[in-house]
Amino acid sequence: MASEFDLIARHFTWPSPGALLAVGDDAALLSPAAGAALAVSTDLLVEGTHFLAGTDPRRLGHKCLAVNLSDLAAMGARPRWFTLGLSLPAVDEAWLAAFAAGMRALAQAHGIELVGGDTTRGPLTIAITVIGEVPAGEALRRDGAQAGDEVWVSGELGEAACALLALQGRAGSRAAVFARGRERLEAPRPRVALGLALRGVASAAIDVSDGLCADLGHVLERSGVGARVRVDDLPRSDALAGCRDDPAVRAAVLGGGDDYELCFTAPASRHDRVLAAGAAAGVRVSAVGEIVAGRELVLLDGHGAVVRPPRAGYDHFSDG
Amino acid sequence: MASEFDLIARHFTWPSPGALLAVGDDAALLSPAAGAALAVSTDLLVEGTHFLAGTDPRRLGHKCLAVNLSDLAAMGARPRWFTLGLSLPAVDEAWLAAFAAGMRALAQAHGIELVGGDTTRGPLTIAITVIGEVPAGEALRRDGAQAGDEVWVSGELGEAACALLALQGRAGSRAAVFARGRERLEAPRPRVALGLALRGVASAAIDVSDGLCADLGHVLERSGVGARVRVDDLPRSDALAGCRDDPAVRAAVLGGGDDYELCFTAPASRHDRVLAAGAAAGVRVSAVGEIVAGRELVLLDGHGAVVRPPRAGYDHFSDG
Repeated sequence: MASEFDLIARHFTWPSPGALLAVGDDAALLSPAAGAALAVSTDLLVEGTHFLAGTDPRRLGHKCLAVNLSDLAAMGARPRWFTLGLSLPAVDEAWLAAFAAGMRALAQAHGIELVGGDTTRGPLTIAITVIGEVPAGEALRRDGAQAGDEVWVSGELGEAACALLALQGRAGSRAAVFARGRERLEAPRPRVALGLALRGVASAAIDVSDGLCADLGHVLERSGVGARVRVDDLPRSDALAGCRDDPAVRAAVLGGGDDYELCFTAPASRHDRVLAAGAAAGVRVSAVGEIVAGRELVLLDGHGAVVRPPRAGYDHFSDG
Repeated sequence: MASEFDLIARHFTWPSPGALLAVGDDAALLSPAAGAALAVSTDLLVEGTHFLAGTDPRRLGHKCLAVNLSDLAAMGARPRWFTLGLSLPAVDEAWLAAFAAGMRALAQAHGIELVGGDTTRGPLTIAITVIGEVPAGEALRRDGAQAGDEVWVSGELGEAACALLALQGRAGSRAAVFARGRERLEAPRPRVALGLALRGVASAAIDVSDGLCADLGHVLERSGVGARVRVDDLPRSDALAGCRDDPAVRAAVLGGGDDYELCFTAPASRHDRVLAAGAAAGVRVSAVGEIVAGRELVLLDGHGAVVRPPRAGYDHFSDG
């Protein structure tokens, strides 16, 4: 008789030709490429904190891995292996099958292999640790930005935060427009190819998970520099471009979470190489400002006037 | 003003000279030793499932890391780095300080460095991923046991399970004796040094977390062999040795969880080398049976009669 553990294992036993030994022993055994540094990142997603109860399980499986891949993208690392810790209130096979399918499709698309994990009974919680490889000297760190560098953003910002407003019934008359970003919120696409293309080009990078101002702020802090960002140049989707002056949209673009785009810096002399990296990766890249001496992040409108930043990035321990 | 995140970070920012880049970027950057394979394992511990509410936080911090180190021990891997995902219902600085101190002391004792993590609000859950190093050909796997090998167990079995009975008020007149194992339950000592000493000596190994019968059963299944185990030879603490015929003690020794000892096999010709490995690691090792052809685990009493095994190992999704 198959136990519930066997059932869970069946949904998460996928081929892993890139591991010496994967699921089924006390630990996985992995053989990193000679000379590569490992990029390792962990994210914990909790129902009610990071996603709403009732979220489509296929999208949830995708998203849990996507947010971790986004961290590897921001390091310029190539995804290799991951582990999955899963706490479940009960075993619902249809839910598990969909969750696993969503995760597996994204894993296959990025060539990352599930090599270990742990399953237990408890509140719905998903803990993923990803391991990628990057030549040590080419990793995209947060501490490399220098005065004179340009500030860039990939893709578009704010859609996920606006979609969350719509889902929460807080979008008012803009509900239909905001809801169009729901796929961005629930199934973000990590910018792995762009991260790889930016090796040797970008001077610093971070993924935008807590909102642009907060995340760019981390780069500035670690690099010991300031930045001037042109708010009107921040990339928005076509849907949101029509509500340019809407305060909720501006707040979402500047401070909304869950974008999973890359914010990065590069010397101005590499402007065309950044554009080429974006083209190679098939991702829009937008120059939105420049790194300056000092420590401050200054936001400017189209007339050069200073714009007040939104409140700090989402803090899971604040009231936000 | 320090946010609660800053406060948490302060308790978990420890020196990590063995990492190229640790906490503070999108991912840690690690540089494995040339030629080493990585052993990677993940465990998720949930309040109410793996530990009781109100468990001493210092011991809890120790235990969460210990159970992961035990997996590395069972692979013969040298601990190097770990990540910590922590979901907390609220920020209680005294609790955090004690939890971090317990974890840090064990980490320092084993030379393993905290290189990344994630903290969030949610039900108390601890997710740890450990990374160790082992020469690929020397890893202690579950699939190497062969007929004729001896079966060995480190330390003593059953103390943790008996202590849990005492804590749950289910130990009856033996409460005082059983309670003596509480430190074993709450602060297990992973057999890392023994695992390293068994490289090139043991043919297979596993750590005893779900009970000896269940865990030895995994070795038998993966190796395609059977075993005969002499129940009276199973190592017990002095306290439990006095209750040899107590059914609860026998069940704890054979099937209790949370021992975190190693169960391993080695060719009979290496008997003295196993004893030497135990002496070098400062850990008692006991020969308790032998690997045989077939698929069955047979338990024998002192008269050679077959003993019924306890029910299967603890399943977090069963009623157990």
